[in-house]
Amino acid sequence: MKKLINDPADVVAQALAGMAAAHPELRVDEQNRLILRGDAPVPGKVGLVSGGGSGHEPLHGGFVGFGMLDAACAGEVFTSPVPDQILAATAAVDAGAGVLHIVKNYTGDVMNFDMAAELAAAETGAEVVAVVVDDDVAVRDSLYTAGRRGVGGTVVLEKIAGAAAEQGRPLAAVAELARTVNARSRSMGMALTSCTVPAAGRPTFELGETEMEIGIGIHGEPGRRRVPLAPAREVAAMLVEPILSDLPYDRGDRVICFVNGMGGTPLLELYVMYNEVARILRGHGVRIARSLVGPYITSLEMAGCSVTLTRVDDELLDLWDAPVRTPALRWGV
Amino acid sequence: MKKLINDPADVVAQALAGMAAAHPELRVDEQNRLILRGDAPVPGKVGLVSGGGSGHEPLHGGFVGFGMLDAACAGEVFTSPVPDQILAATAAVDAGAGVLHIVKNYTGDVMNFDMAAELAAAETGAEVVAVVVDDDVAVRDSLYTAGRRGVGGTVVLEKIAGAAAEQGRPLAAVAELARTVNARSRSMGMALTSCTVPAAGRPTFELGETEMEIGIGIHGEPGRRRVPLAPAREVAAMLVEPILSDLPYDRGDRVICFVNGMGGTPLLELYVMYNEVARILRGHGVRIARSLVGPYITSLEMAGCSVTLTRVDDELLDLWDAPVRTPALRWGV
Repeated sequence: MKKLINDPADVVAQALAGMAAAHPELRVDEQNRLILRGDAPVPGKVGLVSGGGSGHEPLHGGFVGFGMLDAACAGEVFTSPVPDQILAATAAVDAGAGVLHIVKNYTGDVMNFDMAAELAAAETGAEVVAVVVDDDVAVRDSLYTAGRRGVGGTVVLEKIAGAAAEQGRPLAAVAELARTVNARSRSMGMALTSCTVPAAGRPTFELGETEMEIGIGIHGEPGRRRVPLAPAREVAAMLVEPILSDLPYDRGDRVICFVNGMGGTPLLELYVMYNEVARILRGHGVRIARSLVGPYITSLEMAGCSVTLTRVDDELLDLWDAPVRTPALRWGV
Repeated sequence: MKKLINDPADVVAQALAGMAAAHPELRVDEQNRLILRGDAPVPGKVGLVSGGGSGHEPLHGGFVGFGMLDAACAGEVFTSPVPDQILAATAAVDAGAGVLHIVKNYTGDVMNFDMAAELAAAETGAEVVAVVVDDDVAVRDSLYTAGRRGVGGTVVLEKIAGAAAEQGRPLAAVAELARTVNARSRSMGMALTSCTVPAAGRPTFELGETEMEIGIGIHGEPGRRRVPLAPAREVAAMLVEPILSDLPYDRGDRVICFVNGMGGTPLLELYVMYNEVARILRGHGVRIARSLVGPYITSLEMAGCSVTLTRVDDELLDLWDAPVRTPALRWGV
């Protein structure tokens, strides 16, 4: 295992310390492993809390800040955060306007966020609404999930819901909007190589030198099928066609087109992929309103990519374009 | 070779097409392989042109836009752009206020930018000044370079010089500022793994399972020494101590601290590294004024990182903080 770490047991804690040192505008609660907006709780604003296993950076900690999340809970690598963490985050961002939990659909995450919401209601009286993200079209029910997995759509949802909360919208409205974004988002990913969880010390799965996995999850969990390596244009079709037919996205629809790197794939290749994805969308008459290209929801050093489409209208686009200031997404401020 | 490409011969052209599709605010000259500001030439403004081999993305094309570069010339992977490209870029961004060439110190780049400047003077009468970046403390004279190599300091220089040009400063002043940033910047990198140039189809160099290369160049060219794998804190010391003693950086100095990913290293690990780098700087009384953490000057999928420090004063900090809108660096707009 070749990694820039000290001790596999300390990776998450030390990365959080690095976040704290690099981003003084954020507050890091090292004990609870939380990344918080420096000004949380923001008076009058709905608090947005997300979180999940580490190893997907910049998700979620890199999306904490003005216009996006109020707090992110960092679990161990590829492991759900525990209820106490989520409870602490919920309490820290609750300014009385309620708290939205943004939960990727993995069994452990859903259970622990549920438990935290119950504890919060009992202990602090916080009003909590949870929205579960399940945008992955690859598989139903997998290693860590009942139903579809939550993947790239999470990034889009956190941006748009964050902008709505920043505008002062009430909890029910922010939650409804988040559900809308999830309902209009579909994703699918693929891997060229595996990844190694530091504590495990060996690759999560094996993939032959001439194979790739289509429909991979962000923890290396199995996808739809293992196929021989293929050119980018065929890979793009394997990802985009199932996405398009799933919602479905229709001629004339406008989308945010998000081509995500899994961690080990160079940006050069992501733009080659983006070119192929855009070509397929043009062929279907689907119009790209905004784009995002880069590693935003990763699986450690896995080589591969995912594609996420979110169907948007003017309101969603305005919220996407609204100012945001986080370590990983920033514009307008 | 596992890559998301179609044909090794078409990687750069297709990535540029992807850039054009993803970033409609930019203009891509596919014939000359240039990425240009959509509004170039900007009246009254000094034009900033950089470029180099592809495979280092987002450098340079991802830094084109308001407040940074006016044009980037994309060579083949790890290969200098040719004089005709650079000439076309120079002509395209020259609004009469002159053009600054920002050239990383590699023999081919320096020669081709030189030739393009001569051609521009002869053919278009453009006033061109070149600034050569040579911030790498690892080695003097290497596989592709006489003198020191240009690496991470290039990103900081392009941001600060771009802000100065945006303010309307004249060519001589922007060039002088660029030289100042270069003079105050020092970098050193390391690799855990090699990378594969698509056209070559096999790793650029071999590195054993328990080895790493300290002082690596951004093309995989040899560094200072090959040593056994070590914890992040020791790696940080191997990079930061030579940087600190080289300028030297003194107690009380303020710096921009840039921890860069070489392409294949997860952000989680870069933050672990940042934490160690920050600790060493604290120990030396060097104060971090601003930070940048992420893959900004890469070597395809190489795993590893580099550290760049730039000593700053209030003027340089104001220019660093000034609004920028490019695919890879954006704030304030």
